[in-house]
Amino acid sequence: MKELTLVKIGGNLIDDERKLSASLEAFSKIKGAKLLVHGGGKLATDMAKQLGIESPMIDGRRITNAETLKVVSMVYAGWINKKIVAGLQALNQKAIGLCGADDNLILAEKRQHASIDYGFVGDVVAVNKQAVSDFIEQNKVLVLSAITHDGKGQLLNTNADTIATEIAIAMSENYQVKLIYSFEKPGVLTHPDDDASFLKSLDLNLYKEMKENGSINKGMIPKTENAFRAFNKGVDVLIGDLLRMSGDDYCGTELTACK
Amino acid sequence: MKELTLVKIGGNLIDDERKLSASLEAFSKIKGAKLLVHGGGKLATDMAKQLGIESPMIDGRRITNAETLKVVSMVYAGWINKKIVAGLQALNQKAIGLCGADDNLILAEKRQHASIDYGFVGDVVAVNKQAVSDFIEQNKVLVLSAITHDGKGQLLNTNADTIATEIAIAMSENYQVKLIYSFEKPGVLTHPDDDASFLKSLDLNLYKEMKENGSINKGMIPKTENAFRAFNKGVDVLIGDLLRMSGDDYCGTELTACK
Repeated sequence: MKELTLVKIGGNLIDDERKLSASLEAFSKIKGAKLLVHGGGKLATDMAKQLGIESPMIDGRRITNAETLKVVSMVYAGWINKKIVAGLQALNQKAIGLCGADDNLILAEKRQHASIDYGFVGDVVAVNKQAVSDFIEQNKVLVLSAITHDGKGQLLNTNADTIATEIAIAMSENYQVKLIYSFEKPGVLTHPDDDASFLKSLDLNLYKEMKENGSINKGMIPKTENAFRAFNKGVDVLIGDLLRMSGDDYCGTELTACK
Repeated sequence: MKELTLVKIGGNLIDDERKLSASLEAFSKIKGAKLLVHGGGKLATDMAKQLGIESPMIDGRRITNAETLKVVSMVYAGWINKKIVAGLQALNQKAIGLCGADDNLILAEKRQHASIDYGFVGDVVAVNKQAVSDFIEQNKVLVLSAITHDGKGQLLNTNADTIATEIAIAMSENYQVKLIYSFEKPGVLTHPDDDASFLKSLDLNLYKEMKENGSINKGMIPKTENAFRAFNKGVDVLIGDLLRMSGDDYCGTELTACK
């Protein structure tokens, strides 16, 4: 099967011009078929604040009212997406920036929840594998922002790690997918404040143990769970920092099967 | 030659939810290959104001400083573009929203001017005809926002009428292009305040006369000049209101050759 490398770059890399530009350079050096997924980092929060829009969080997930949806669509699909595309074009990458509504790439549904109204938050229903494949086969490099749609005209806000995971799983039917969750740490750390404590590999048993003893917590929990979801479907998963990787030497925490 | 209908929808249609949705419905009914170009209307100006950003105009053209560029990229390429795409998808259109940086669709250069610094304003250098054709041949409906790039990583702000004109001219080499500049008027008016005064046709002599006597003025001058530029390259041009057109009955002002 043909290889496909899917990189998700995290908010902290996007917030820092220098790190973003270095991440794009590292991404441009990845050989073969590839795809970039990005979120929006603090920029959306800052923009909402500047506009006086309240944007509460529950369990690390943003509650998306109509005003927040407008801000995240603008910041993710407009500013960040196009800045990344222009940056990649300058590196001779055939970059095309899309969101889930474009070409019906990612169909989602408004989150249903018994007690919490998440607003315009979308849970992924389907990835348009054919469309993604078509772009890949034309040697285009998709740059995807984490905005989806419901197919009835409504844009929705979806977690970027989840988008990366869902695309990786969908594409793994026809490609050998390597999924890299790139963020500001060298990998999963046993001691959150000590970069040197990063694990070369992580299996589900160790993850459960670390979750229980609290060394994996907060935003790392949904990220790692997304990662295992992809891993369980045959995706090669690496959690790390694109900037510390070079060429085929992918430094980071590799997910592995339990022994 | 295969026909290609290119519609540019103006700011006043975008600012009004009901008119925008009706315009998308009218656009969805156009048969055959088609492409939509949009600007941003008052939304970008309003957003800049809300953020306290000064955005001066010279000769009807916005001066684009770094902050304004961010706002127009967000509003045009993010919010408006994605809202239009989601709306078209709901109408079963295979819509893909892009800006000029995506797929290197529209290469531009920062405007050079002896006395005025326009900031990050881009003048079109080249349209990627092959990429546009590829999308058309795949039956995709491109939705283009008026953001371009210089190929060196810099996004630029370009007038939407100019984008529509340049694409129409470029594509007319391989397609019979019909270009519709859709705005809130039924066509070119001999009396700016009287919709009933719209012309069924306009040739260059009449245009010059109307420009001289002031019945064509302000924003209508660059629009009409863009229109004649396309017409002179063999493009069929109509200036009117998509909402007053139905099916193949394109009501509006048709450009014609001088008798």
